[in-house]
Amino acid sequence: MGLADKACQSLPKGSPPLDKQQAAELHQAISDWALNEAEQTLTREFKFKNFYQTIEFVNAVAWIANQQDHHPDLAVSYNRCQITFTTHSAGGLSENDFICAARVDVLFD
Amino acid sequence: MGLADKACQSLPKGSPPLDKQQAAELHQAISDWALNEAEQTLTREFKFKNFYQTIEFVNAVAWIANQQDHHPDLAVSYNRCQITFTTHSAGGLSENDFICAARVDVLFD
Repeated sequence: MGLADKACQSLPKGSPPLDKQQAAELHQAISDWALNEAEQTLTREFKFKNFYQTIEFVNAVAWIANQQDHHPDLAVSYNRCQITFTTHSAGGLSENDFICAARVDVLFD
Repeated sequence: MGLADKACQSLPKGSPPLDKQQAAELHQAISDWALNEAEQTLTREFKFKNFYQTIEFVNAVAWIANQQDHHPDLAVSYNRCQITFTTHSAGGLSENDFICAARVDVLFD
Protein backbone atom coordinates (compact mmCIF):
# COMPACT_ATOMS: atom_id res chain seq x y z
CA MET A 1 0.00 0.00 0.00
CA GLY A 2 1.44 3.34 -1.02
CA LEU A 3 1.62 6.35 1.28
CA ALA A 4 -1.19 8.08 -0.62
CA ASP A 5 -3.48 5.14 0.10
CA LYS A 6 -3.02 5.46 3.83
CA ALA A 7 -5.19 7.65 6.06
CA CYS A 8 -3.91 10.01 8.70
CA GLN A 9 -4.20 8.67 12.24
CA SER A 10 -4.83 10.84 15.26
CA LEU A 11 -1.74 10.67 17.43
CA PRO A 12 -1.89 9.77 21.13
CA LYS A 13 -0.93 12.71 23.30
CA GLY A 14 2.81 12.87 23.81
CA SER A 15 3.62 10.91 20.65
CA PRO A 16 7.21 11.56 19.62
CA PRO A 17 8.08 12.77 16.13
CA LEU A 18 9.67 10.41 13.63
CA ASP A 19 13.39 9.97 14.06
CA LYS A 20 15.82 10.95 11.33
CA GLN A 21 15.98 7.51 9.76
CA GLN A 22 12.22 6.97 9.75
CA ALA A 23 11.72 10.35 8.11
CA ALA A 24 14.42 9.68 5.52
CA GLU A 25 12.82 6.37 4.57
CA LEU A 26 9.36 7.86 4.13
CA HIS A 27 10.86 10.78 2.22
CA GLN A 28 11.97 8.45 -0.57
CA ALA A 29 8.34 8.12 -1.67
CA ILE A 30 7.78 11.89 -1.92
CA SER A 31 11.15 13.11 -3.13
CA ASP A 32 9.70 16.23 -4.78
CA TRP A 33 9.20 17.58 -1.28
CA ALA A 34 12.02 19.22 0.62
CA LEU A 35 12.58 17.66 4.01
CA ASN A 36 13.93 20.30 6.39
CA GLU A 37 15.42 18.47 9.34
CA ALA A 38 16.13 21.61 11.35
CA GLU A 39 12.58 22.94 11.07
CA GLN A 40 11.00 19.48 10.92
CA THR A 41 8.91 20.33 7.88
CA LEU A 42 8.03 19.00 4.45
CA THR A 43 7.69 21.70 1.76
CA ARG A 44 6.89 21.71 -1.94
CA GLU A 45 6.14 24.59 -4.28
CA PHE A 46 3.58 24.17 -7.04
CA LYS A 47 3.39 26.51 -10.04
CA PHE A 48 0.33 27.44 -12.08
CA LYS A 49 -0.66 29.57 -15.05
CA ASN A 50 -2.72 32.11 -13.18
CA PHE A 51 -4.52 32.96 -9.94
CA TYR A 52 -7.64 31.01 -10.87
CA GLN A 53 -5.68 27.78 -11.15
CA THR A 54 -3.74 28.55 -8.01
CA ILE A 55 -6.89 29.07 -5.94
CA GLU A 56 -8.52 25.95 -7.40
CA PHE A 57 -5.49 24.00 -6.22
CA VAL A 58 -5.70 25.61 -2.77
CA ASN A 59 -9.29 24.40 -2.49
CA ALA A 60 -8.40 20.89 -3.56
CA VAL A 61 -5.62 20.82 -0.97
CA ALA A 62 -8.09 22.11 1.62
CA TRP A 63 -10.36 19.18 0.78
CA ILE A 64 -7.55 16.74 1.52
CA ALA A 65 -6.59 18.65 4.68
CA ASN A 66 -10.14 18.54 6.05
CA GLN A 67 -10.68 14.94 4.97
CA GLN A 68 -7.50 13.86 6.75
CA ASP A 69 -7.89 16.42 9.56
CA HIS A 70 -4.29 17.44 9.02
CA HIS A 71 -3.72 20.99 7.88
CA PRO A 72 -0.72 22.51 6.13
CA ASP A 73 0.54 26.06 5.96
CA LEU A 74 0.10 27.60 2.50
CA ALA A 75 2.01 30.48 0.94
CA VAL A 76 -0.12 31.59 -1.99
CA SER A 77 0.74 34.11 -4.68
CA TYR A 78 -0.47 34.78 -8.22
CA ASN A 79 0.89 31.61 -9.81
CA ARG A 80 2.46 29.68 -6.94
CA CYS A 81 1.40 27.76 -3.88
CA GLN A 82 4.00 26.57 -1.42
CA ILE A 83 2.75 23.91 0.98
CA THR A 84 4.38 23.09 4.31
CA PHE A 85 3.46 20.14 6.49
CA THR A 86 4.55 19.49 10.05
CA THR A 87 2.86 17.92 13.07
CA HIS A 88 2.65 20.48 15.86
CA SER A 89 1.25 17.97 18.35
CA ALA A 90 4.31 15.76 17.93
CA GLY A 91 6.76 18.64 17.85
CA GLY A 92 8.12 17.48 14.53
CA LEU A 93 7.30 15.25 11.58
CA SER A 94 4.86 12.36 11.77
CA GLU A 95 3.75 9.84 9.17
CA ASN A 96 0.65 12.03 8.72
CA ASP A 97 2.80 14.69 7.06
CA PHE A 98 4.12 12.19 4.53
CA ILE A 99 0.65 10.74 3.89
CA CYS A 100 -0.79 14.19 3.15
CA ALA A 101 2.21 15.13 0.99
CA ALA A 102 1.73 11.94 -1.02
CA ARG A 103 -1.97 12.69 -1.40
CA VAL A 104 -1.18 16.18 -2.66
CA ASP A 105 1.27 14.68 -5.16
CA VAL A 106 -1.46 12.40 -6.50
CA LEU A 107 -3.79 15.41 -6.74
CA PHE A 108 -1.23 17.46 -8.64
CA ASP A 109 0.26 14.83 -10.91
CA MET B 1 -16.44 58.21 -2.14
CA GLY B 2 -14.60 55.81 0.15
CA LEU B 3 -11.60 53.78 -0.92
CA ALA B 4 -13.67 50.59 -0.93
CA ASP B 5 -16.03 52.14 -3.47
CA LYS B 6 -13.26 52.81 -5.94
CA ALA B 7 -12.14 50.31 -8.57
CA CYS B 8 -8.56 49.39 -9.32
CA GLN B 9 -7.16 51.05 -12.42
CA SER B 10 -4.60 49.46 -14.70
CA LEU B 11 -1.43 51.50 -14.42
CA PRO B 12 0.35 52.89 -17.47
CA LYS B 13 3.73 51.23 -17.98
CA GLY B 14 6.40 53.00 -15.98
CA SER B 15 3.98 54.47 -13.45
CA PRO B 16 5.84 55.44 -10.29
CA PRO B 17 4.77 54.15 -6.88
CA LEU B 18 3.04 56.47 -4.41
CA ASP B 19 5.38 58.71 -2.50
CA LYS B 20 5.63 58.52 1.29
CA GLN B 21 3.07 61.27 1.93
CA GLN B 22 0.51 59.91 -0.53
CA ALA B 23 0.80 56.45 1.03
CA ALA B 24 0.50 57.86 4.56
CA GLU B 25 -2.67 59.75 3.65
CA LEU B 26 -4.34 56.71 2.08
CA HIS B 27 -3.22 54.57 5.01
CA GLN B 28 -5.41 56.58 7.38
CA ALA B 29 -8.49 54.93 5.87
CA ILE B 30 -7.18 51.39 6.40
CA SER B 31 -5.29 51.73 9.65
CA ASP B 32 -5.73 48.05 10.58
CA TRP B 33 -3.17 47.30 7.87
CA ALA B 34 0.54 47.60 8.53
CA LEU B 35 2.26 49.85 6.02
CA ASN B 36 5.84 48.67 5.57
CA GLU B 37 7.72 51.51 3.91
CA ALA B 38 10.93 49.54 3.44
CA GLU B 39 9.22 46.65 1.68
CA GLN B 40 6.49 48.82 0.16
CA THR B 41 3.72 46.53 1.29
CA LEU B 42 0.38 46.59 3.09
CA THR B 43 -0.22 43.63 5.40
CA ARG B 44 -3.02 42.53 7.68
CA GLU B 45 -3.58 39.26 9.52
CA PHE B 46 -7.09 37.88 9.92
CA LYS B 47 -7.96 35.22 12.50
CA PHE B 48 -10.68 32.58 12.29
CA LYS B 49 -12.15 29.74 14.31
CA ASN B 50 -11.02 26.91 12.06
CA PHE B 51 -9.68 25.92 8.66
CA TYR B 52 -13.11 25.93 7.04
CA GLN B 53 -13.63 29.60 7.88
CA THR B 54 -10.09 30.45 6.86
CA ILE B 55 -10.48 28.88 3.43
CA GLU B 56 -13.87 30.50 2.91
CA PHE B 57 -12.21 33.85 3.56
CA VAL B 58 -9.41 33.01 1.12
CA ASN B 59 -12.01 32.37 -1.56
CA ALA B 60 -13.82 35.63 -0.85
CA VAL B 61 -10.51 37.49 -1.07
CA ALA B 62 -9.78 35.68 -4.34
CA TRP B 63 -13.10 36.94 -5.68
CA ILE B 64 -12.07 40.53 -4.93
CA ALA B 65 -8.61 39.94 -6.36
CA ASN B 66 -9.96 38.59 -9.64
CA GLN B 67 -12.70 41.22 -9.84
CA GLN B 68 -10.14 44.00 -9.37
CA ASP B 69 -7.40 42.13 -11.27
CA HIS B 70 -5.04 42.89 -8.42
CA HIS B 71 -3.70 39.90 -6.51
CA PRO B 72 -2.24 39.71 -3.02
CA ASP B 73 0.12 37.22 -1.46
CA LEU B 74 -1.59 35.05 1.16
CA ALA B 75 -0.03 33.20 4.08
CA VAL B 76 -2.63 30.68 5.17
CA SER B 77 -2.59 28.44 8.21
CA TYR B 78 -5.25 26.62 10.23
CA ASN B 79 -6.92 29.70 11.71
CA ARG B 80 -5.07 32.63 10.16
CA CYS B 81 -4.73 34.35 6.82
CA GLN B 82 -2.15 37.07 6.37
CA ILE B 83 -2.68 39.22 3.30
CA THR B 84 0.02 41.30 1.65
CA PHE B 85 -0.59 43.81 -1.13
CA THR B 86 2.01 45.56 -3.26
CA THR B 87 2.11 46.66 -6.89
CA HIS B 88 4.97 44.92 -8.64
CA SER B 89 4.48 46.84 -11.88
CA ALA B 90 5.01 50.13 -10.04
CA GLY B 91 7.85 48.82 -7.92
CA GLY B 92 6.03 49.84 -4.74
CA LEU B 93 2.63 50.81 -3.46
CA SER B 94 -0.15 52.14 -5.68
CA GLU B 95 -3.68 53.30 -4.90
CA ASN B 96 -4.80 49.86 -6.10
CA ASP B 97 -3.24 48.28 -2.99
CA PHE B 98 -5.22 50.58 -0.71
CA ILE B 99 -8.45 50.04 -2.68
CA CYS B 100 -8.15 46.26 -2.37
CA ALA B 101 -7.20 46.48 1.30
CA ALA B 102 -10.30 48.62 1.94
CA ARG B 103 -12.46 46.14 0.02
CA VAL B 104 -11.09 43.27 2.12
CA ASP B 105 -11.86 45.28 5.28
CA VAL B 106 -15.48 45.65 4.15
CA LEU B 107 -15.60 41.93 3.42
CA PHE B 108 -14.25 41.03 6.85
CA ASP B 109 -16.02 43.58 9.00
